[in-house]
Amino acid sequence: MGRVSDAGERIVRAAARLFLTRSCQDVSIDDICAAADVRKGSFYHYFPSKADLVKAVVDLHASALWDAMDSARDTGGETAVRRLFAMADAIGAIQTEFEQRHGRVVGCPFGNLAAELSTINPELSDHLAQVLGEIERRLAVVCRAAVDEGAWRPGVDPDQLARSLNALIQGTILLAKVNGSCAASIGPALHSLVANHLKDDVAAVV
Amino acid sequence: MGRVSDAGERIVRAAARLFLTRSCQDVSIDDICAAADVRKGSFYHYFPSKADLVKAVVDLHASALWDAMDSARDTGGETAVRRLFAMADAIGAIQTEFEQRHGRVVGCPFGNLAAELSTINPELSDHLAQVLGEIERRLAVVCRAAVDEGAWRPGVDPDQLARSLNALIQGTILLAKVNGSCAASIGPALHSLVANHLKDDVAAVV
Repeated sequence: MGRVSDAGERIVRAAARLFLTRSCQDVSIDDICAAADVRKGSFYHYFPSKADLVKAVVDLHASALWDAMDSARDTGGETAVRRLFAMADAIGAIQTEFEQRHGRVVGCPFGNLAAELSTINPELSDHLAQVLGEIERRLAVVCRAAVDEGAWRPGVDPDQLARSLNALIQGTILLAKVNGSCAASIGPALHSLVANHLKDDVAAVV
Repeated sequence: MGRVSDAGERIVRAAARLFLTRSCQDVSIDDICAAADVRKGSFYHYFPSKADLVKAVVDLHASALWDAMDSARDTGGETAVRRLFAMADAIGAIQTEFEQRHGRVVGCPFGNLAAELSTINPELSDHLAQVLGEIERRLAVVCRAAVDEGAWRPGVDPDQLARSLNALIQGTILLAKVNGSCAASIGPALHSLVANHLKDDVAAVV
Protein backbone atom coordinates (compact mmCIF):
# COMPACT_ATOMS: atom_id res chain seq x y z
CA MET A 1 0.00 0.00 0.00
CA GLY A 2 1.46 3.38 -1.07
CA ARG A 3 1.18 6.90 0.26
CA VAL A 4 -2.22 7.50 -1.32
CA SER A 5 -4.23 4.92 0.62
CA ASP A 6 -2.30 5.87 3.78
CA ALA A 7 -3.56 9.43 3.34
CA GLY A 8 -7.18 8.26 3.10
CA GLU A 9 -6.80 6.23 6.26
CA ARG A 10 -5.01 9.08 8.07
CA ILE A 11 -7.93 11.40 7.22
CA VAL A 12 -10.52 8.97 8.64
CA ARG A 13 -8.52 8.35 11.82
CA ALA A 14 -7.83 12.06 12.39
CA ALA A 15 -11.51 12.88 11.84
CA ALA A 16 -12.61 10.07 14.20
CA ARG A 17 -10.35 11.51 16.91
CA LEU A 18 -11.40 15.14 16.37
CA PHE A 19 -15.13 14.34 16.17
CA LEU A 20 -14.89 12.50 19.52
CA THR A 21 -12.73 15.02 21.36
CA ARG A 22 -14.62 18.05 20.01
CA SER A 23 -17.71 17.44 17.85
CA CYS A 24 -18.41 16.90 14.16
CA GLN A 25 -19.61 20.43 13.48
CA ASP A 26 -16.87 22.04 15.58
CA VAL A 27 -14.23 20.49 13.30
CA SER A 28 -13.51 21.97 9.87
CA ILE A 29 -12.03 20.17 6.87
CA ASP A 30 -8.95 22.40 7.37
CA ASP A 31 -8.63 21.07 10.95
CA ILE A 32 -8.83 17.49 9.67
CA CYS A 33 -6.30 18.08 6.87
CA ALA A 34 -3.88 19.63 9.36
CA ALA A 35 -4.28 16.76 11.83
CA ALA A 36 -3.92 14.15 9.07
CA ASP A 37 -1.08 16.02 7.36
CA VAL A 38 -2.75 15.99 3.93
CA ARG A 39 -3.50 18.79 1.49
CA LYS A 40 -7.08 19.92 0.95
CA GLY A 41 -7.06 18.83 -2.71
CA SER A 42 -6.06 15.37 -1.57
CA PHE A 43 -8.90 15.35 0.99
CA TYR A 44 -11.53 15.92 -1.72
CA HIS A 45 -9.99 13.15 -3.80
CA TYR A 46 -10.97 10.70 -1.05
CA PHE A 47 -14.09 12.39 0.31
CA PRO A 48 -16.16 14.53 -2.06
CA SER A 49 -17.95 15.99 0.98
CA LYS A 50 -17.69 16.08 4.77
CA ALA A 51 -20.77 13.80 4.88
CA ASP A 52 -18.82 11.12 2.99
CA LEU A 53 -16.08 11.37 5.60
CA VAL A 54 -18.60 11.15 8.46
CA LYS A 55 -19.93 7.95 6.90
CA ALA A 56 -16.39 6.50 6.74
CA VAL A 57 -15.81 7.44 10.41
CA VAL A 58 -19.07 5.72 11.39
CA ASP A 59 -18.04 2.60 9.46
CA LEU A 60 -14.59 2.57 11.13
CA HIS A 61 -16.18 2.64 14.61
CA ALA A 62 -18.90 0.15 13.60
CA SER A 63 -16.36 -2.35 12.34
CA ALA A 64 -14.46 -2.17 15.67
CA LEU A 65 -17.73 -2.52 17.60
CA TRP A 66 -18.87 -5.63 15.69
CA ASP A 67 -15.47 -7.25 16.34
CA ALA A 68 -15.69 -6.45 20.07
CA MET A 69 -19.34 -7.51 20.47
CA ASP A 70 -18.93 -10.72 18.45
CA SER A 71 -15.74 -11.68 20.28
CA ALA A 72 -17.45 -11.07 23.66
CA ARG A 73 -20.44 -13.15 22.52
CA ASP A 74 -18.24 -16.01 21.32
CA THR A 75 -16.00 -16.15 24.39
CA GLY A 76 -18.36 -14.74 27.06
CA GLY A 77 -19.38 -18.03 28.65
CA GLU A 78 -21.61 -21.07 28.56
CA THR A 79 -24.96 -19.33 28.95
CA ALA A 80 -26.68 -16.62 26.91
CA VAL A 81 -26.88 -14.42 30.02
CA ARG A 82 -23.12 -14.61 30.53
CA ARG A 83 -22.63 -13.77 26.85
CA LEU A 84 -24.95 -10.78 27.22
CA PHE A 85 -22.97 -9.53 30.25
CA ALA A 86 -19.76 -9.95 28.25
CA MET A 87 -21.22 -7.89 25.39
CA ALA A 88 -22.18 -5.13 27.86
CA ASP A 89 -18.64 -5.24 29.25
CA ALA A 90 -17.21 -4.99 25.72
CA ILE A 91 -19.18 -1.79 25.16
CA GLY A 92 -17.93 -0.45 28.50
CA ALA A 93 -14.37 -1.43 27.51
CA ILE A 94 -14.56 0.61 24.29
CA GLN A 95 -15.55 3.64 26.37
CA THR A 96 -12.66 2.96 28.76
CA GLU A 97 -10.29 2.79 25.80
CA PHE A 98 -11.58 6.17 24.54
CA GLU A 99 -11.25 7.56 28.08
CA GLN A 100 -7.63 6.41 28.32
CA ARG A 101 -6.83 7.80 24.89
CA HIS A 102 -8.65 11.14 25.23
CA GLY A 103 -8.55 11.79 28.98
CA ARG A 104 -12.31 11.75 29.51
CA VAL A 105 -15.51 9.97 28.50
CA VAL A 106 -16.15 11.37 25.01
CA GLY A 107 -19.49 9.69 24.26
CA CYS A 108 -20.66 7.05 21.82
CA PRO A 109 -19.41 7.89 18.30
CA PHE A 110 -22.81 6.94 16.85
CA GLY A 111 -24.90 8.65 19.56
CA ASN A 112 -22.86 11.86 19.34
CA LEU A 113 -23.31 12.08 15.58
CA ALA A 114 -26.98 11.08 15.81
CA ALA A 115 -27.67 13.88 18.30
CA GLU A 116 -25.81 16.41 16.16
CA LEU A 117 -26.83 15.42 12.65
CA SER A 118 -30.16 13.53 12.62
CA THR A 119 -32.22 16.66 12.11
CA ILE A 120 -29.94 18.17 9.47
CA ASN A 121 -28.76 15.28 7.29
CA PRO A 122 -31.37 12.55 6.57
CA GLU A 123 -28.87 10.32 4.74
CA LEU A 124 -26.38 10.30 7.63
CA SER A 125 -29.26 9.86 10.05
CA ASP A 126 -30.36 6.73 8.15
CA HIS A 127 -26.81 5.40 8.19
CA LEU A 128 -26.54 5.95 11.95
CA ALA A 129 -29.99 4.41 12.51
CA GLN A 130 -28.82 1.29 10.69
CA VAL A 131 -25.74 0.94 12.91
CA LEU A 132 -27.71 1.59 16.11
CA GLY A 133 -30.37 -0.89 14.91
CA GLU A 134 -27.65 -3.47 14.30
CA ILE A 135 -26.44 -3.11 17.94
CA GLU A 136 -30.01 -3.86 19.06
CA ARG A 137 -30.30 -6.81 16.65
CA ARG A 138 -27.08 -8.36 18.01
CA LEU A 139 -28.32 -7.90 21.60
CA ALA A 140 -31.76 -9.33 20.72
CA VAL A 141 -30.28 -12.58 19.36
CA VAL A 142 -28.68 -13.25 22.76
CA CYS A 143 -31.72 -12.04 24.75
CA ARG A 144 -33.84 -14.54 22.76
CA ALA A 145 -31.33 -17.35 23.36
CA ALA A 146 -31.69 -16.65 27.09
CA VAL A 147 -35.46 -17.27 26.76
CA ASP A 148 -34.70 -20.81 25.58
CA GLU A 149 -32.50 -21.27 28.64
CA GLY A 150 -35.32 -20.09 30.95
CA ALA A 151 -33.30 -17.15 32.27
CA TRP A 152 -35.91 -14.35 32.30
CA ARG A 153 -38.71 -13.77 34.73
CA PRO A 154 -42.23 -14.41 33.37
CA GLY A 155 -43.46 -11.66 31.09
CA VAL A 156 -40.02 -10.43 29.96
CA ASP A 157 -40.06 -9.76 26.21
CA PRO A 158 -36.50 -10.35 24.91
CA ASP A 159 -36.92 -7.89 22.02
CA GLN A 160 -38.16 -5.18 24.38
CA LEU A 161 -35.22 -5.93 26.69
CA ALA A 162 -32.75 -5.57 23.78
CA ARG A 163 -34.44 -2.26 22.86
CA SER A 164 -34.17 -1.01 26.47
CA LEU A 165 -30.56 -2.14 26.68
CA ASN A 166 -29.69 -0.34 23.45
CA ALA A 167 -31.34 2.85 24.75
CA LEU A 168 -29.66 2.47 28.14
CA ILE A 169 -26.26 2.15 26.43
CA GLN A 170 -26.82 5.49 24.69
CA GLY A 171 -28.23 7.25 27.77
CA THR A 172 -25.61 5.93 30.18
CA ILE A 173 -22.72 6.92 27.92
CA LEU A 174 -24.21 10.37 27.27
CA LEU A 175 -24.73 11.03 30.99
CA ALA A 176 -21.19 9.83 31.79
CA LYS A 177 -19.91 12.27 29.15
CA VAL A 178 -21.83 15.28 30.47
CA ASN A 179 -21.24 14.38 34.13
CA GLY A 180 -17.52 13.84 33.60
CA SER A 181 -17.96 10.37 35.15
CA CYS A 182 -15.64 7.46 34.85
CA ALA A 183 -16.12 4.99 31.95
CA ALA A 184 -15.83 2.14 34.47
CA SER A 185 -19.41 2.92 35.60
CA ILE A 186 -20.90 2.13 32.17
CA GLY A 187 -20.61 -1.70 32.11
CA PRO A 188 -22.11 -2.16 35.61
CA ALA A 189 -25.08 0.13 34.75
CA LEU A 190 -25.87 -2.16 31.81
CA HIS A 191 -25.42 -5.31 33.95
CA SER A 192 -27.92 -3.91 36.43
CA LEU A 193 -30.68 -3.73 33.79
CA VAL A 194 -30.02 -7.30 32.61
CA ALA A 195 -29.84 -8.63 36.20
CA ASN A 196 -33.20 -7.05 36.99
CA HIS A 197 -34.90 -9.18 34.33
CA LEU A 198 -33.47 -12.51 35.53
CA LYS A 199 -35.31 -15.13 37.55
CA ASP A 200 -34.04 -15.07 41.15
CA ASP A 201 -32.37 -18.49 40.90
CA VAL A 202 -30.59 -17.50 37.66
CA ALA A 203 -29.51 -14.11 39.10
CA ALA A 204 -28.01 -15.92 42.08
CA VAL A 205 -25.58 -17.93 39.94
CA VAL A 206 -24.38 -15.48 37.25
CA MET B 1 -43.27 45.02 29.19
CA GLY B 2 -41.75 47.10 26.38
CA ARG B 3 -40.12 46.19 23.07
CA VAL B 4 -36.72 45.58 24.66
CA SER B 5 -37.65 42.69 26.93
CA ASP B 6 -39.84 41.24 24.16
CA ALA B 7 -36.75 41.14 21.97
CA GLY B 8 -34.78 39.19 24.58
CA GLU B 9 -37.57 36.65 24.87
CA ARG B 10 -37.97 36.41 21.08
CA ILE B 11 -34.25 35.63 20.78
CA VAL B 12 -34.45 32.79 23.33
CA ARG B 13 -37.58 31.29 21.77
CA ALA B 14 -36.17 31.51 18.23
CA ALA B 15 -32.90 29.92 19.37
CA ALA B 16 -34.76 27.15 21.23
CA ARG B 17 -36.70 26.32 18.05
CA LEU B 18 -33.65 26.45 15.74
CA PHE B 19 -31.43 24.41 18.10
CA LEU B 20 -34.09 21.67 18.21
CA THR B 21 -34.96 21.60 14.53
CA ARG B 22 -31.33 21.87 13.38
CA SER B 23 -28.57 21.82 16.04
CA CYS B 24 -26.80 24.39 18.18
CA GLN B 25 -23.65 24.53 16.08
CA ASP B 26 -25.55 24.51 12.78
CA VAL B 27 -27.29 27.76 13.77
CA SER B 28 -25.46 31.10 13.55
CA ILE B 29 -26.23 34.25 15.51
CA ASP B 30 -27.31 35.77 12.18
CA ASP B 31 -29.84 32.93 11.75
CA ILE B 32 -31.20 33.57 15.25
CA CYS B 33 -31.41 37.35 14.74
CA ALA B 34 -33.29 36.81 11.47
CA ALA B 35 -35.72 34.35 13.05
CA ALA B 36 -36.27 36.61 16.09
CA ASP B 37 -36.44 39.78 13.96
CA VAL B 38 -33.81 41.63 16.02
CA ARG B 39 -30.62 43.42 14.98
CA LYS B 40 -27.24 41.88 15.83
CA GLY B 41 -26.32 44.81 18.11
CA SER B 42 -29.49 44.18 20.06
CA PHE B 43 -28.61 40.47 20.33
CA TYR B 44 -25.29 41.23 22.03
CA HIS B 45 -27.05 43.60 24.43
CA TYR B 46 -28.95 40.59 25.82
CA PHE B 47 -26.40 37.84 25.26
CA PRO B 48 -22.70 38.75 25.32
CA SER B 49 -21.93 35.36 23.73
CA LYS B 50 -23.69 32.42 22.10
CA ALA B 51 -22.90 30.40 25.26
CA ASP B 52 -24.99 32.86 27.33
CA LEU B 53 -27.89 32.30 24.94
CA VAL B 54 -27.48 28.50 25.12
CA LYS B 55 -27.71 28.78 28.91
CA ALA B 56 -30.92 30.81 28.63
CA VAL B 57 -32.39 28.23 26.22
CA VAL B 58 -31.52 25.42 28.66
CA ASP B 59 -33.19 27.35 31.49
CA LEU B 60 -36.33 27.95 29.39
CA HIS B 61 -36.68 24.20 28.70
CA ALA B 62 -35.78 23.27 32.29
CA SER B 63 -38.43 25.57 33.72
CA ALA B 64 -41.09 23.95 31.49
CA LEU B 65 -39.85 20.48 32.46
CA TRP B 66 -40.01 21.14 36.21
CA ASP B 67 -43.59 22.43 35.82
CA ALA B 68 -44.58 19.32 33.84
CA MET B 69 -42.82 16.82 36.14
CA ASP B 70 -44.08 18.46 39.35
CA SER B 71 -47.63 18.71 38.07
CA ALA B 72 -47.56 15.02 37.02
CA ARG B 73 -46.16 14.07 40.43
CA ASP B 74 -48.81 16.09 42.29
CA THR B 75 -51.79 14.85 40.26
CA GLY B 76 -50.49 11.44 39.14
CA GLY B 77 -52.34 9.30 41.66
CA GLU B 78 -52.49 7.86 45.13
CA THR B 79 -49.32 5.77 45.01
CA ALA B 80 -45.71 6.66 44.31
CA VAL B 81 -45.65 4.17 41.42
CA ARG B 82 -48.59 5.89 39.74
CA ARG B 83 -46.87 9.24 40.25
CA LEU B 84 -43.70 7.83 38.65
CA PHE B 85 -45.69 6.59 35.64
CA ALA B 86 -47.31 10.03 35.36
CA MET B 87 -43.86 11.69 35.39
CA ALA B 88 -42.69 9.34 32.62
CA ASP B 89 -45.83 10.23 30.64
CA ALA B 90 -45.16 13.94 31.17
CA ILE B 91 -41.70 13.51 29.62
CA GLY B 92 -43.26 11.60 26.70
CA ALA B 93 -45.87 14.37 26.33
CA ILE B 94 -43.18 17.05 25.98
CA GLN B 95 -41.65 15.02 23.14
CA THR B 96 -45.10 14.67 21.53
CA GLU B 97 -45.56 18.44 21.77
CA PHE B 98 -42.19 18.98 20.05
CA GLU B 99 -43.15 16.39 17.42
CA GLN B 100 -46.44 18.19 16.70
CA ARG B 101 -44.71 21.55 16.51
CA HIS B 102 -41.68 20.49 14.45
CA GLY B 103 -43.01 17.54 12.45
CA ARG B 104 -40.63 14.94 13.91
CA VAL B 105 -38.98 13.80 17.14
CA VAL B 106 -36.23 16.39 17.60
CA GLY B 107 -34.53 14.97 20.70
CA CYS B 108 -34.17 16.09 24.30
CA PRO B 109 -33.04 19.74 24.40
CA PHE B 110 -30.57 18.90 27.21
CA GLY B 111 -29.33 15.65 25.69
CA ASN B 112 -28.83 17.23 22.26
CA LEU B 113 -26.76 20.06 23.71
CA ALA B 114 -24.86 17.71 26.03
CA ALA B 115 -23.85 15.50 23.09
CA GLU B 116 -22.79 18.51 21.02
CA LEU B 117 -21.11 20.71 23.61
CA SER B 118 -19.87 18.67 26.61
CA THR B 119 -16.41 18.18 25.14
CA ILE B 120 -16.00 21.75 23.92
CA ASN B 121 -17.52 23.98 26.61
CA PRO B 122 -16.96 22.87 30.24
CA GLU B 123 -19.18 25.61 31.68
CA LEU B 124 -22.18 24.69 29.51
CA SER B 125 -21.45 21.02 30.21
CA ASP B 126 -21.67 21.70 33.95
CA HIS B 127 -24.91 23.61 33.49
CA LEU B 128 -26.42 20.72 31.49
CA ALA B 129 -25.13 18.17 34.03
CA GLN B 130 -26.96 20.09 36.78
CA VAL B 131 -30.26 20.00 34.88
CA LEU B 132 -29.89 16.31 33.99
CA GLY B 133 -28.94 15.57 37.61
CA GLU B 134 -32.05 17.42 38.78
CA ILE B 135 -34.26 15.18 36.59
CA GLU B 136 -32.68 12.16 38.31
CA ARG B 137 -33.12 13.74 41.75
CA ARG B 138 -36.85 14.34 41.12
CA LEU B 139 -37.28 10.74 39.91
CA ALA B 140 -35.31 9.38 42.90
CA VAL B 141 -37.62 11.08 45.43
CA VAL B 142 -40.58 9.18 43.99
CA CYS B 143 -38.64 5.90 43.57
CA ARG B 144 -37.73 6.12 47.28
CA ALA B 145 -41.34 6.86 48.28
CA ALA B 146 -42.31 3.65 46.44
CA VAL B 147 -39.88 1.73 48.69
CA ASP B 148 -41.91 2.85 51.71
CA GLU B 149 -45.05 1.57 49.96
CA GLY B 150 -43.40 -1.84 49.35
CA ALA B 151 -43.70 -1.53 45.56
CA TRP B 152 -40.30 -2.83 44.39
CA ARG B 153 -39.06 -6.38 44.22
CA PRO B 154 -36.40 -7.33 46.79
CA GLY B 155 -32.97 -5.95 45.94
CA VAL B 156 -34.18 -2.97 43.88
CA ASP B 157 -32.14 0.14 44.76
CA PRO B 158 -34.41 3.18 44.19
CA ASP B 159 -31.46 5.49 43.46
CA GLN B 160 -30.06 3.06 40.88
CA LEU B 161 -33.54 2.80 39.35
CA ALA B 162 -33.79 6.61 39.10
CA ARG B 163 -30.34 6.65 37.47
CA SER B 164 -31.37 3.95 34.96
CA LEU B 165 -34.62 5.75 34.24
CA ASN B 166 -32.80 9.03 33.63
CA ALA B 167 -30.40 7.28 31.24
CA LEU B 168 -33.26 5.43 29.53
CA ILE B 169 -35.06 8.75 28.97
CA GLN B 170 -32.01 10.09 27.14
CA GLY B 171 -31.36 6.93 25.15
CA THR B 172 -34.99 6.34 24.18
CA ILE B 173 -35.46 9.92 22.97
CA LEU B 174 -32.16 9.86 21.04
CA LEU B 175 -33.05 6.57 19.33
CA ALA B 176 -36.54 7.86 18.46
CA LYS B 177 -34.89 10.93 16.92
CA VAL B 178 -32.41 8.99 14.79
CA ASN B 179 -34.92 6.26 13.87
CA GLY B 180 -37.60 8.78 12.90
CA SER B 181 -39.93 6.99 15.34
CA CYS B 182 -43.10 8.36 16.82
CA ALA B 183 -42.91 10.24 20.15
CA ALA B 184 -45.83 8.11 21.40
CA SER B 185 -43.38 5.21 21.89
CA ILE B 186 -41.30 7.10 24.48
CA GLY B 187 -43.66 7.03 27.52
CA PRO B 188 -44.38 3.26 27.19
CA ALA B 189 -40.64 2.47 26.94
CA LEU B 190 -40.12 4.23 30.29
CA HIS B 191 -43.17 2.48 31.84
CA SER B 192 -41.69 -0.86 30.84
CA LEU B 193 -38.53 -0.25 32.90
CA VAL B 194 -40.51 0.81 35.97
CA ALA B 195 -42.96 -2.11 35.62
CA ASN B 196 -40.05 -4.56 35.48
CA HIS B 197 -38.93 -3.52 38.96
CA LEU B 198 -42.34 -3.93 40.62
CA LYS B 199 -43.43 -6.85 42.77
CA ASP B 200 -45.83 -9.06 40.82
CA ASP B 201 -48.85 -8.17 42.99
CA VAL B 202 -48.11 -4.43 42.63
CA ALA B 203 -47.56 -4.73 38.86
CA ALA B 204 -50.94 -6.45 38.56
CA VAL B 205 -52.85 -3.47 39.95
CA VAL B 206 -51.12 -0.38 38.46
